[in-house]
Amino acid sequence: MSRLEEKTIHRRTIFEGRVIRVELDEVGLPNGKTSTRELVRHSGAVSVLAVTGEGKIVLVRQYRKPLEKEILELPAGKLEPGEDPADCALRELEEETGYRAAELTHLVSFYTSPGFADELLHLYEAQGVSEGTFRPDEDEFVERVELTLEEAFDRMKSGEICDAKTVTALYILQGREQSIG
Amino acid sequence: MSRLEEKTIHRRTIFEGRVIRVELDEVGLPNGKTSTRELVRHSGAVSVLAVTGEGKIVLVRQYRKPLEKEILELPAGKLEPGEDPADCALRELEEETGYRAAELTHLVSFYTSPGFADELLHLYEAQGVSEGTFRPDEDEFVERVELTLEEAFDRMKSGEICDAKTVTALYILQGREQSIG
Repeated sequence: MSRLEEKTIHRRTIFEGRVIRVELDEVGLPNGKTSTRELVRHSGAVSVLAVTGEGKIVLVRQYRKPLEKEILELPAGKLEPGEDPADCALRELEEETGYRAAELTHLVSFYTSPGFADELLHLYEAQGVSEGTFRPDEDEFVERVELTLEEAFDRMKSGEICDAKTVTALYILQGREQSIG
Repeated sequence: MSRLEEKTIHRRTIFEGRVIRVELDEVGLPNGKTSTRELVRHSGAVSVLAVTGEGKIVLVRQYRKPLEKEILELPAGKLEPGEDPADCALRELEEETGYRAAELTHLVSFYTSPGFADELLHLYEAQGVSEGTFRPDEDEFVERVELTLEEAFDRMKSGEICDAKTVTALYILQGREQSIG
């Protein structure tokens, strides 16, 4: 057993939603005391960095209810339980942007907020990007936006691009261009 | 009003914890239909990229209950309501690692998971890093680990470094070294 482990003494489900499940754990700490941990369960997500033949990054403008505003993000979506992340990424890219990818490369996967949530996000890069069919979900209202890397960094400075996956992808792309240039 | 906006029809608080508050919104969609949105409210967080005089990145090993495992992360902490993010970052760095910073530079701020949470994470870089006093919170069990950038990327590949803020900081640092090299 790990010296830092927190053992579950009791778990209570607080909320079971479509997107998240909230649990409250009573835990035993390494020093023998007890505490509580608030846990948000999520089935995971995927996101795709797609660059068009014209060298533009494909983004979507979307209203995010938790923030009460529109932001610009990479196309992304929630994984269904058991779903292959790459399949999900290909589907979300086409649904949200109308672009198809011939192939995907895995860039990185990360937990978005490991202090309270188990959401794991898989970030891919699209290869062979071509026009497909734009068909967002019925409850999904998105607008496609295409930006150069420089324009995308400007939108990051202005705060319009402001989420973990998109920020990470832009730094990966910038680092690569710097290593080539 | 934005064309993509989702108007709040009704809001219900599901859970009020120490770290998160969970709300369930009934929303009016742009097409006139209604839907629900699950929202996790969080007061925000800070994190610090600190590099020692020996060129090592300062990380902490920590057990993360939502993941049921130990991972390696940049030192970080939750903002208290109204707290200055830079003050919080300086305090967390010293509490969790024993290192002090003469100054902080803001690198980037991002929403960790804007689909369901409003947590905004402020990422800083420490300047003038020196030994201070290691004094973690009573309920906090952390171990300091120092790695070169190359070692840190190896730990990212092996999955031990696997959270949004740390991954982002490593790519920022790598991009900078590539642009110098």
